[in-house]
Parts: sequence; structure tokens; C-alpha cells
Amino acid sequence: MGRFDILITNGTILSMDPQNSIIKGGFLGIKGDTISYIGSGDDEFEAKKIIDAKDGLILPGLINGHTHAAMTLFRGLADDLPLMEWLNNYVFPVEGKMDANFVRVGSLLACAEMILSGTTTFCDMYLFEEEVAKAAKESGMRCLVGEVLYDFPSPNYGSVEKGFAYTEGLIERWKEDPLVDIAVEPHSLFTCGVDLLHKANDLALNSDVPLILHVAETRAELEQIEKQYGKRPVQHLKDLGLLSPHLIADHCVYINESEIEVLAEHKVSVVHNPESNMKLASGFAPVPEMIANGITVGLGTDGCASNNNLDLFAEMDMAAKLHKVNNLDPTVMDAQTLFKMATIDGARALGLEKVTGSLEVGKRADLIIIDTKKPHLIPMYNPYSHLVYAAGGHDVKHSIINGSIVMEDRRLLTLEVEDIMEQAKEQSHRVREWVG
Amino acid sequence: MGRFDILITNGTILSMDPQNSIIKGGFLGIKGDTISYIGSGDDEFEAKKIIDAKDGLILPGLINGHTHAAMTLFRGLADDLPLMEWLNNYVFPVEGKMDANFVRVGSLLACAEMILSGTTTFCDMYLFEEEVAKAAKESGMRCLVGEVLYDFPSPNYGSVEKGFAYTEGLIERWKEDPLVDIAVEPHSLFTCGVDLLHKANDLALNSDVPLILHVAETRAELEQIEKQYGKRPVQHLKDLGLLSPHLIADHCVYINESEIEVLAEHKVSVVHNPESNMKLASGFAPVPEMIANGITVGLGTDGCASNNNLDLFAEMDMAAKLHKVNNLDPTVMDAQTLFKMATIDGARALGLEKVTGSLEVGKRADLIIIDTKKPHLIPMYNPYSHLVYAAGGHDVKHSIINGSIVMEDRRLLTLEVEDIMEQAKEQSHRVREWVG
Repeated sequence: MGRFDILITNGTILSMDPQNSIIKGGFLGIKGDTISYIGSGDDEFEAKKIIDAKDGLILPGLINGHTHAAMTLFRGLADDLPLMEWLNNYVFPVEGKMDANFVRVGSLLACAEMILSGTTTFCDMYLFEEEVAKAAKESGMRCLVGEVLYDFPSPNYGSVEKGFAYTEGLIERWKEDPLVDIAVEPHSLFTCGVDLLHKANDLALNSDVPLILHVAETRAELEQIEKQYGKRPVQHLKDLGLLSPHLIADHCVYINESEIEVLAEHKVSVVHNPESNMKLASGFAPVPEMIANGITVGLGTDGCASNNNLDLFAEMDMAAKLHKVNNLDPTVMDAQTLFKMATIDGARALGLEKVTGSLEVGKRADLIIIDTKKPHLIPMYNPYSHLVYAAGGHDVKHSIINGSIVMEDRRLLTLEVEDIMEQAKEQSHRVREWVG
Repeated sequence: MGRFDILITNGTILSMDPQNSIIKGGFLGIKGDTISYIGSGDDEFEAKKIIDAKDGLILPGLINGHTHAAMTLFRGLADDLPLMEWLNNYVFPVEGKMDANFVRVGSLLACAEMILSGTTTFCDMYLFEEEVAKAAKESGMRCLVGEVLYDFPSPNYGSVEKGFAYTEGLIERWKEDPLVDIAVEPHSLFTCGVDLLHKANDLALNSDVPLILHVAETRAELEQIEKQYGKRPVQHLKDLGLLSPHLIADHCVYINESEIEVLAEHKVSVVHNPESNMKLASGFAPVPEMIANGITVGLGTDGCASNNNLDLFAEMDMAAKLHKVNNLDPTVMDAQTLFKMATIDGARALGLEKVTGSLEVGKRADLIIIDTKKPHLIPMYNPYSHLVYAAGGHDVKHSIINGSIVMEDRRLLTLEVEDIMEQAKEQSHRVREWVG
């Protein structure tokens, strides 16, 4: 084996490598930020730090493919409302008043929740994204983030030009960072005109970063695009020349069979957000059909205003069950498929598959350890089943990101969680004022 | 205030009383098995034991309206399979071999999981129910249990007559028990002929106990009943004279508008099991329509072979979201409605509303305390929203049933959980042999 900075012992490793290798009684060694050994641990070794997995599960850290992290501060502010009432009376008034510090606090709170529930990488779209990048960096999380762009001014920038300049600044400042990646993120086809979309696509291509937008999330959006452009969203994207492997399309609820083929042909990645699609009553995304057509589909929680948590274990469970009942077929979306979406396929969707999403020698050490000695996880016939249908984020005991321990025995090592919760309470008083 | 055996201080009390009273900074006093005080705690008091809720939530314990507790031992044994393959190759072979000790161990494991996730009362239908009643009693849980009856012999009894005799024995032995109630539980219309159903109904009426059966769970069942009797399940039940307030109908997925009216008219209670209906791809129960027609609808997890957990927090979340997306209406099934289903309406469905399901002076002290000082529960704008959409069973810190503390600081006081988990592992070796 050899010498390691960290050695994890005595766990069942679900690698999510191309063979879906499972190693029982597995050992995993880390040097610096990298996985340098995976095996049975029979040989001699030295390690600065040993973590005993105690017969638990050693897993790739989970990938939250789409969220708006700072919306943790609106969680439970307004639920069960008609969409336009929710947006006009709550979401937009709050977003209109928020500032960088609000996003900083909300993002730190989100990072705490994500680490505590087993997520090691997240993809964010929101305002004041410099603060989100800093919060991820501070918490030790891997992320892909981008400032939301739309035709109208945002609370963070007064004009579209400034929005692009802000994005260019993000790309420039974070380009060498080992944890933070930047994307260009126009909001959607109904908030971004043709000029903005072309400019965003050019910036993404020239900077070699992903382009991310919401696509066909709701029926209202579908109808608006059809009315405005005389075509459906995917055709509109195709005609604009935006369909390519650098595009990550969030949601894709209202896409038909031929659009699935078009997305697959152009190797566009999709992020599915089942809980948000259910809670907002958006609809049923045709995920089994997308996967059958070879589209890479990751899993996202969306923001806490429409979920209302960031726990990807709940998201896996919900996604599996949603598509089974919607197809009236219990064989659809099996447990291993879901775990793949939350790990290696999530990484692939974000263009991070060479870095994270599976446990393989040479990849960055992004991993979590599940304590399985609990009444709801014993006995264990099939680990994938337990992860999707029985476990929750609270079962994650330790978390390591980029070779650093960020949670040990459920204690956050990078964040002052008590202080963050106090700051979140303070921000919530502002929110109450803003919504009257 | 006065003298108490247990006094809970400094919490927000969600009473679920007829006014849905919420008391901030609330105190709740218990004498013996009974709630004797609810209020602001301004006066003098003495208490043998004080539990500081620390600004958390004080709630009625949750009611699991339908489960098969011992199926914890099959959790994850077989998922994502066609229904008949799942039943014929896994469930039936295992059930054919099981014995009283298997049910004892599986039920104790289930009780541990239920207490740890905030459930204080459960309703069970399975084999060897004497063991389930004993497990509930040992763990300190409230329950309504009954031996499953069908036309063919079960592993527990050689003939229908013996099944009835076993049920009569349960009713006789447990009739004075403060925690255990017994029901008569014919399995379903497709496994129980007219004679058995009449006999079961007579026994339930003569013994003044509920009659419980699975009703219209799957399309296959609907079609079989239509073929066999030339009518739909609810009409069949009506013609048999089985529709009345003592009937608890589990599932009710395949019922139409006029059947909903018939069930409402006869004051039949229904227990909804969304996760099981989704995972087995059974279908969408018309729950919003049942509630709109005045039917009392409780919430159940069903067994762990089709869920795969006993966490009612996940069940509330799933139910709310399932019906929103199915109706394409985000206002359907709001958070308070879900919490009501999991508490007072669940108690009402089981005929236990005078005993449990809400926090009111004079009722038995069945309650849980939620620790809200966690990143995913701060800030809190609306406690119902957090309970349904953000919290999980793991957020329950303390549990009191019938005036006894069964969990304190997440430590189970009534059960030797390490020993139960060891016994569960041993039983799982038998299961592996049984399914080959």
C-alpha cells in the first residue's frame, strides 16, 4: 500500500467506476488532494490520519447538479401557493432587496447543510455569485457557479453589460482555483432574448466553461416560447446554435420524444430536479426516456424555496418513486441508476467527471462515509437500495473534499455553524420586513 | 401550574387541537400517563423531571396508520422488480418460512426505527401478531394490531378457523392494555371470500374493534374483483354490508368519484400510503378528493419491503409533492393538511382520537420534541412547512408515549438497540437462505 495522508479502513467501497466495482472490507488511501490507493489493505501502510469506516459504506461524495444556495434563507417563507403569487409576492420582492451579505450568509448555511447531508460538489445559479464561490471555498466544497443573467437589471448589476463583466470577472478570478469553477448562466429562454443568449454562448465557448440555463421547466414557459418564437424551447436553442456538449439544461420537463433525440444527438447534459418539479407542480420530466436515449442526467435539489431541503438522498428516493408511479412500472429508475445520477453522472453533467463523482485512483478525494449501524439500515442486502430508499443525509458520518476532512463524526470542521445560524436568523428578520 | 411527573419547557407547541392552537414559549405538564397542563408556564411549578425543549417544537407523536412492521427484515432484499416477480420470488417464499421469533425481531427493529423517527402509534397487519403486540409493549409504543386473515392457511395458523381463534385470543388477552389495541384484519377482497369477510365483520362488530383491510390498491386487484363479482371493490364492500365507521380501508388507489362519496357517506376511514403506491407503481390515490369529501385520511408507510423506511416525515413530504404534481396544482395538500394527516387525523382514522393525535389536557401524553437548531431548520418562518418539507425523523430529539420517556437525546430507553440489530443480522442470514 504505502504512505498516505489519510487512510480510510474497513468499509464497503461503492466506487461508481466504469465497472461499478464494489470492494468489501475496502481501504482507501489519500495523498494530498488525490486518491492514491483503493484495495483490500492487505499490505503494510503508514498514514498520518486513519478513519475507521467501521463496516460502513465509503462512497463518492454526492453532486448537487442545480441549486440556488442562498435561498436557504427563504425556506418555508411561502409554500403551497399558486406559482405567480409565490413569485410576485415573495420571491421577487426578496430578491429585489437582497445584497451580497445576504447571499454570503445564505450560501454558508447551504454549504453547512450540504456537507451534513453528504454533498461534496454543487452547481449554483444566483445573484452575487462571488459570495457563493467564497462560501464554497471557505467551507471546502467543490462547486460550479455562475451569475444569473437576464435582459433586465438585477440587484447585483445595473445592466446586461455589467452582468457579463461580472461573469468575466468571476471566470478570471477563479480560473486557477482547485475547488471553484465558473459557468456562464443565462436564466432561461423566457427571460433572455436572442442577443443575450448568443453573447452568453460566445463567452462560454471562448472561456471554455459550461453554459447553464433553465429549459422547459413549466408549461407556461413552453407556451410563452411557442408564442414568442413560433417554436418549442429545444428547437429555439437549436436554431440559436446553443446545443452542444458545453450546455447544461436544467429541468427539461416539457420536452417531447424528438426533442430528447435532439438533445442526445448534441450531447447536451440535463439536470433533473424532481422535488422542485413536484412541489411547484411543474410536471413530470421524461427522465427514463432521456437516459434510454443516452443523455447524461444529473440530479439537483433546486433552491430551498421549492424543495425545501438540499438533501440528495431524499432527492434520489423521490426521483425513483416519481418515475415508477408516473410510468406505472416498478422497474423504471432502479436504485443503482439513481445513485449513479447523484454521483458520476452528476459529475459528467457538470463536466467534472475527470475530477470527481467516483472513487478511482488519480481522481480528487471527494468522498463520504455512511454509518450503517442503525436500525433503519440493518440488515443490508443491497447497499444501493439502502442509499436510495432507506438512508438520509443524516446517516453521513464523515466527509472529505479534495483530500481535506470537512466533516468528522458529523462535526463540521471548516464552518462555524452556530455563528452561521445566528447570522441566518438576523437575515430572516430582514426577509420578514421585505415581504411585509 | 402545579406538580408534574414530567414538565416540558420552552418550546413552540403545535397542539393539533380543533383550533390548531400554537403556543410559543410553551410549557406542557404530564401527570402519570396524561397531559395535565398546556400553557405559558408563568406560574409556580414542581416537577420530578424537566425536559428543556430549547426553543424547539413540541408536537403530538406521529401516527403510522398502516405498516407491516416485521418487514424491516426484508428491507432492500428485492426492489425495482415487476410486482409478481417481487411477490412470488421474494415476499411469499420468505413469509412462508417465517416464525414467531422472526416477527418478534423484525417488529422490535421496526419499533426502534419508528421511535427514532418520531412515531408514537402504529397500526400493523401481519403474521404472528401476538409478537408485534409484545414488541410494541416492550418498546412502550401505542399500537393497533391484528392478525392477517385470508382464505388459505398462513404460516401462523393451519386454517381460517384457527386464524379467527388466534384473533379472538388477541382481543381477549389485550383488551385491558393501555397501549395495545386489537383489530380484525382480513387481508383484501381478492384473498378473502364472502364468508370470511362476513365472519370478520361480525367479529369486529361484536368485539367493538376496527375492521381493517387493503382496498383497491392496484389495478390488477380492481380488475380481478370486477371479473369475480361483476362490480368494483367499494360496491362489493357495500353490498356485503361492510361499509361503516368501524372500517379502515388501506390504500384506496383505484376508487372513483362516486365511490369516494359512498365511503364518505358511510364514514369509512382511509389510510394513504404514498411511498409504497409510488415504489410499487400502484398508482395515484385520489387523496385531495377524499379529504374534500370529508373522509378522514391517515398516513401510513406500508411495510419496509415497499418503501423502504418507516419515517413519516418522508411520507408527509412525498404525499404533499405527489399530489401537487399529479394535479398540476401547487396549492393542493398544504403542509398543515399533511401534518394533520400524520397526527390527529391518523388517530381519528384508527379510532384513537380520544387518546392520542393531539396535545390537549386530558389526553394521553404521546409527544415528540424536535431540535430545530440545525442548518436545515433555520430560519423558521412556518413550522408546518419545516416539518413537512425540510425536517426528517432524525430531527426528533425526545419522545414520550403514554407519559413515559421512550427516547431522550436520541437514546432509546426501552430497547436494547445494539442487541436487536445483532438479532436482525442473524435473521437476515435465514432470509438469504430462504430466497436462495
